Amino acid sequence: MEPGPAAARGPGWRGAAAPAPAAAAAVAAVAAVLPAGGSGERMGVPTPKQFCPVLERPLISYTLQALESICWIKDIVVAVTGENMEAMKGIIQKYQHQRISLVTAGVTRHRSIFNGLKALAEDQPDSKLSKPEVVIIHDAVRPFVEEDVLLKVVTAAKEHGAAGAIRPLVSTVISPSADGCLDHSLDRARHRASEMPQAFLFDVIYEAYQQCSDYDLEFGTECLQLALKYGHVHAKLVEGSPDLWKVTYKRDLYAAESIIKERISQHICIVMDTKDENHVGHHLEEILKNELNHVKVTSGALCPAGRDLEQIILEQCYSYVCVNVMSSDFEKTRRLLNMLEESNLSILYPIVVISVYFLDYKSVPFDQKMENLMQIKEYAKEVKKRNILLCGLLIYYPQVFCSGKTMQLLMEEQNLQASLRQGATIIATLIKERNSGLVGQLLVA
Amino acid sequence: MEPGPAAARGPGWRGAAAPAPAAAAAVAAVAAVLPAGGSGERMGVPTPKQFCPVLERPLISYTLQALESICWIKDIVVAVTGENMEAMKGIIQKYQHQRISLVTAGVTRHRSIFNGLKALAEDQPDSKLSKPEVVIIHDAVRPFVEEDVLLKVVTAAKEHGAAGAIRPLVSTVISPSADGCLDHSLDRARHRASEMPQAFLFDVIYEAYQQCSDYDLEFGTECLQLALKYGHVHAKLVEGSPDLWKVTYKRDLYAAESIIKERISQHICIVMDTKDENHVGHHLEEILKNELNHVKVTSGALCPAGRDLEQIILEQCYSYVCVNVMSSDFEKTRRLLNMLEESNLSILYPIVVISVYFLDYKSVPFDQKMENLMQIKEYAKEVKKRNILLCGLLIYYPQVFCSGKTMQLLMEEQNLQASLRQGATIIATLIKERNSGLVGQLLVA
Repeated sequence: MEPGPAAARGPGWRGAAAPAPAAAAAVAAVAAVLPAGGSGERMGVPTPKQFCPVLERPLISYTLQALESICWIKDIVVAVTGENMEAMKGIIQKYQHQRISLVTAGVTRHRSIFNGLKALAEDQPDSKLSKPEVVIIHDAVRPFVEEDVLLKVVTAAKEHGAAGAIRPLVSTVISPSADGCLDHSLDRARHRASEMPQAFLFDVIYEAYQQCSDYDLEFGTECLQLALKYGHVHAKLVEGSPDLWKVTYKRDLYAAESIIKERISQHICIVMDTKDENHVGHHLEEILKNELNHVKVTSGALCPAGRDLEQIILEQCYSYVCVNVMSSDFEKTRRLLNMLEESNLSILYPIVVISVYFLDYKSVPFDQKMENLMQIKEYAKEVKKRNILLCGLLIYYPQVFCSGKTMQLLMEEQNLQASLRQGATIIATLIKERNSGLVGQLLVA
Repeated sequence: MEPGPAAARGPGWRGAAAPAPAAAAAVAAVAAVLPAGGSGERMGVPTPKQFCPVLERPLISYTLQALESICWIKDIVVAVTGENMEAMKGIIQKYQHQRISLVTAGVTRHRSIFNGLKALAEDQPDSKLSKPEVVIIHDAVRPFVEEDVLLKVVTAAKEHGAAGAIRPLVSTVISPSADGCLDHSLDRARHRASEMPQAFLFDVIYEAYQQCSDYDLEFGTECLQLALKYGHVHAKLVEGSPDLWKVTYKRDLYAAESIIKERISQHICIVMDTKDENHVGHHLEEILKNELNHVKVTSGALCPAGRDLEQIILEQCYSYVCVNVMSSDFEKTRRLLNMLEESNLSILYPIVVISVYFLDYKSVPFDQKMENLMQIKEYAKEVKKRNILLCGLLIYYPQVFCSGKTMQLLMEEQNLQASLRQGATIIATLIKERNSGLVGQLLVA
C-alpha cells in the first residue's frame, strides 16, 4: 500500500487522477478565493469562527479539504489577517493542504476578496499564480460544499458571467421603520437567501472590484451585486443544498461536529481472526449489520498480506472493530494499529478502533488473561497521540456443551444474545461519540 | 422533601409561586398559541420536526416546558393535526405539561393560528378558556424561548398593539427575476429576519384574522403583516437572542441536542461519604472543580437527613458523582438513586450518576470486592427505565506509607495525580455525552 497524503484525504475526496470527464471539459482554468479575515464576533467566542476546532481540527481546514479535493480547482487563495497568518501556515502544514496561497485580508469581506483577486490577476509581479478564466468565491465557514454545486456555479458563470447558490428563506424578511416598528414585510416566495459558493468570469468580477466605490468596499455584502452594478451582469441563481449553510453561531459548530461525526461513522470495518462462520464473532457481525442498517459494514482481513484491509483504509474508513476469538492478546489489534498509523489516515479525522474479546463466564471472570488485557490502557495512550481512539470490549460467552438442548442451554443462548446485542450497542456508541475521554477503557457486555 | 411536578420542571423553571413583580403588574391576561401542524418536509425525515426526539423527548415538549414555566401565561393553545392529536395527548401526559389546550390544526400555519385564536375568543360555547388581553404566538420548534423576550414582546404589544422578535440577517436577501437570474439584492443593514415569539392585543390579531382573505390564510407567512394590513398596527420590533432560531433542518436537531446537553451539565453535585478533608476523594473534587471551571460543582450529603441533597435536587441538578471512599458497596449510591427516583426529576431529562470507588493497586486488583462492584450492571439496567444513567468508576489509589518522603512515594503520588486527572476526564465525558449506551460500565482510571 501507499501511505501518504492520498490516503489521508477525507470522505468526498476523489483524487487528482480521476476528474469527471464532463467537468474537465467544461472548466478550463478555475481558481477559488476564500475570505477568512472575519473576527467571528457573532459567535460569542474569542477565536474567529473559521479557526474554531471541530473534532480538534480548525473549521477552515474542512473547507480547504472540500475545495482541494476537486482536481479542477487549480489554485486556492485564502485571505487571512496578519495576526492569523502564522496560525494559518501551521494549519496548512499540519493537515497537508495543497495548492493554497495566502494573502493578507482587508478590514472588510469585500476588501479581502479584492486582495485575493489581485493575487490572481496577471499584472502582479513575481506571482506563482496565473489568472484563471473563472474564479469561485466561497466562505471559510461553509465546510460542506460539494463538487456538484461548485460545478454548477462555475458552468453557469461561464455562460452568464456570474452565478451564485441560493436557498429558500427560513424566516420572513421585514423592513423596520426609523422608530423600530414594522414598515413592511417581504413576500417570502419572491425572495431568496444568497449563499455561497459563487463564481464569476474573472474579468467581470475583477473589473467590478476595480471600479467599485470605497462605500461598496466598506459596507457591501454581496459580490453578485457588484457584478450587476459595475459589470451589468445578471448572475444566474443556482439552488443549493441545505448543507451550504454558514457556520455563524456556537450552535452551528455543534451541528457541524455532529454532521462530521455522522459522516465518518457511515462505514465500519470488522476485522475477524477466524473464518469459522458458526463462531460467536460472526453472530456479533450479524447483529451489528442488523442494528446499524444505515451503515456500511465490511469485513477486512489482516492475513495473509492484509490486501483487502489496505483497500478499506484507502476508502477512508474511520471505524474498526477488531474481533479476537482465537486469542486474548493484542497481536491482531497491534497489526491493525500499525497499518492505520502508516496510512496517515488519522491526520484529518480521529479513527476509532474497538478490540473485542470473548470471556467464558463459567471460568474465573477476572483472571490472568484479564490482567493482560489491561495493557490496553498503555496502547491506547500511545496511539491517541496519532489521533487513534482505542477501546476494549469484553463479551461474556457462555460455554455451550453439546449434551442436547436442555433448558439451561437455551437460557445461556439467550444470555449470549443479550450480551452480543449490548456489545453492538456499546460499539455503536463508541463509534458515534468518538470521544477521546474514554480511550483505553475495557468495557463489558 | 416534596416530590412531584414541581421538582420535575427543568432549568429555567421559576415556579408558579414566585412571579417577578414587574411582570405580574405589566401583564394582565396572557395566553399563547402554538401552531404545531407542520409536516416538517424540509427536515428530510418522515416525523414532523416538532415531534422529533431530542434526548429521547419530542422537541415540542421542550417548547411547552419553556412556556408553562412562565406563571403569567394563563393558557397555552396548541394546534395539531388530527392524526397527531393522540400522540400530542400522550406527550402532555408523559411529561406532565400544564395549562395546555389542544385544537385541530388547519392546512396552513395561518389557519392553525386562527383556530387557536377562535378557541380563546369568548364567543366559543362551552370553552374552558377565557379571552386574554394579549396573545403570544410562538413556534413549536423554537424551544429556547426565555421569559425575558416574552415579557418584552407582551409589554410592547400592550403599548403598540403588536410586537415581534427580530434578528439580523445571516445571508443577503436577493430577488430573482423570472428567468432565475439576479434582479436585485437587498441592503442587509436595512432588513431583519422576523422571528418568534410575537405578541398582539387579542382583539387586534383576532379581527385581522377574521377580516383577512383566503389568499392570506393560504399563502401568508407573517402575523405582523396581517396586523398591519387589517388592523393598521405597526408592530414594535424587539431584538431577540440567537437562541430563538427555528429548528428547521436535521442539523438544527443536532444543535438543539448539544445545547440541551450543555445546559443540563452546568451543575455537578458531588456526594462524598467522608468529611476527612485530606482524603483522596477530596483531591478528586478539587481536580473536578479546576478542570470544569465553567461548571458549578456543589457538595451534597446523604446524612443525617440528606437535607442539602434534597435542595440540590429541587434546584434541578442533573449530574451526580457519588464518591465512595469508606466502602466498596452500593449502599450510598442506592440511597441517592432512591432519592432521585422519588423526585421525578428524570421525567424531563436523563440524570447521570457516576459511582466512584478507589482501589489500592498494591492489593490484588481484581478480587472479590471487584466482583461485588460488577453488580452495577443490574442496578444500571433497573434505573435506566427511570431515565437515570448509572456508571461506575474505579480509581487506582496507591497505599501511602508514612515512612518518609522516599522517591517511591513521590512516584506513587504522581501516579495518583494522573489517575485522579484521568478520573475527572472520564467523569466529564460521561456527563457531557449523557449516552445511555454506556450505562452499567465500570470504567477504570
